Amino acid sequence: MKTVETLNELWQARKDLPGPVGLVPTMGFLHDGHLMLVKEAKQSCASVVVSIFVNPTQFGPSEDLDAYPRDLQRDLSHLEALDVDLVWIPTSEVMYPANYQTWVEVGDVTKPLEGSYRPGHFRGVTTVVSKLFNAVQPDVAVFGQKDAQQVAVISQMTRDLSYPIEIKVVPIVREGDGLALSSRNTYLNQDQRKAATVLYRALRAAEKAYLSGERSAETIRQIMSETITDEPLASAQYVSCADLLTLTELETITNGALLSMAVYVGKTRLIDNWILGKPNAD
Amino acid sequence: MKTVETLNELWQARKDLPGPVGLVPTMGFLHDGHLMLVKEAKQSCASVVVSIFVNPTQFGPSEDLDAYPRDLQRDLSHLEALDVDLVWIPTSEVMYPANYQTWVEVGDVTKPLEGSYRPGHFRGVTTVVSKLFNAVQPDVAVFGQKDAQQVAVISQMTRDLSYPIEIKVVPIVREGDGLALSSRNTYLNQDQRKAATVLYRALRAAEKAYLSGERSAETIRQIMSETITDEPLASAQYVSCADLLTLTELETITNGALLSMAVYVGKTRLIDNWILGKPNAD
Repeated sequence: MKTVETLNELWQARKDLPGPVGLVPTMGFLHDGHLMLVKEAKQSCASVVVSIFVNPTQFGPSEDLDAYPRDLQRDLSHLEALDVDLVWIPTSEVMYPANYQTWVEVGDVTKPLEGSYRPGHFRGVTTVVSKLFNAVQPDVAVFGQKDAQQVAVISQMTRDLSYPIEIKVVPIVREGDGLALSSRNTYLNQDQRKAATVLYRALRAAEKAYLSGERSAETIRQIMSETITDEPLASAQYVSCADLLTLTELETITNGALLSMAVYVGKTRLIDNWILGKPNAD
Repeated sequence: MKTVETLNELWQARKDLPGPVGLVPTMGFLHDGHLMLVKEAKQSCASVVVSIFVNPTQFGPSEDLDAYPRDLQRDLSHLEALDVDLVWIPTSEVMYPANYQTWVEVGDVTKPLEGSYRPGHFRGVTTVVSKLFNAVQPDVAVFGQKDAQQVAVISQMTRDLSYPIEIKVVPIVREGDGLALSSRNTYLNQDQRKAATVLYRALRAAEKAYLSGERSAETIRQIMSETITDEPLASAQYVSCADLLTLTELETITNGALLSMAVYVGKTRLIDNWILGKPNAD
């Protein structure tokens, strides 16, 4: 496994990789969810590149950029064990040199949900992912369903910008009690960690109602809201029952739906989602 | 020479091209200036791809999109004669499918000069060039110095978005009387065609003053303005004596300068430029 930092090192190493090449973009502090992305890439590609970069432009001014957890040595030993070919660990100066002034912006699909509560977030995501795509020139890029809107936004960008890249999406990996794996789970204390299962409980309560025949999206949203309200340590920022492709809120569920939510547990903001009308992972 | 229209055809044909691959993006109606770009690409690359696409998103609502001249058969015979490998002629539907919503935007360097008189123009240019870069994945892309600000903007975008692409710039090709070649010259009637040499005359008058020791950028701008004012059929939209890299207006010329201008001759808007303190082509 080779690790590189600069663009020139990356481009040099990229030339020697047999195709198809798979890219797994990460912000490091890897958990089993990330490792599933790498395994997916290994399965469909001759070479796998993993990028590790805590991208400052996708964090808001009041968000957790400085606190975001890092453990590069552990990350590298995980990736080595999975036989990754190349790890790119650019610095901020490599990604955003002096006089940087170019942005990739996606429209409608970035507006609701995460986009409405994290202004500028998706501009940072689409810009950095576009840079990763340009620099690595992968044939396949793998993302996690955990960031459901990010998957929709990256898919839109990939199509719109004519990238010859296949986007693969890997299901959410959960703890035994249903909590979706997230690098941010490390912020939770013991009580908060227990309370954090409320996201999964809310999603499953909504799914249960759907499977019993409920098709009012507003009722489904209320079921999720009430489950979260019942948990004293948790507070919902939004709950959503939206169209799978456009992410606009539904009135009636006809062709499946994306259930999603952002919930504060203490000061930690957690997200989770569940697709109705299509098999989920668990 | 192969011609393709869809992305899948392009990607398929691209796989068979030996590298390095050169890309020459054009809007068609090719003149000797374009052919110089192709020759430059032939010289430094094993394969050459030319794109022909009159990109609607870089035209303003009151600009000449519908009138823009087209002659595909003549273009193809020129390119065939130069032994181009692949010509990509996408339709608007290929480039901007239904629900298109992604834009590449460059900041400061797009603001002055053309950017200030053609709002949205560079957003259209950077978006379409980024799409061409993504779809073709060239090693080299060739642009003409005629569009001086476009060269600065594309260079900035290429660096900012981490494209492993070398930008080559080819000097302006001029008629015997100094008029820079442009597809838009076809709009000029006989009297306007004679008057159109005023851009070149203004640039040379400014250069003459510079070579005599003049270093006040304002005086240089006045010399250009006055030359244009003296031509009854012409009217300057702007004249500029700007920093070569940032394109901001200079007070004093210390390290060279970009002289540039947009001039209406009748209803036809012409641009031209000249680099002071560095050899030009003629």
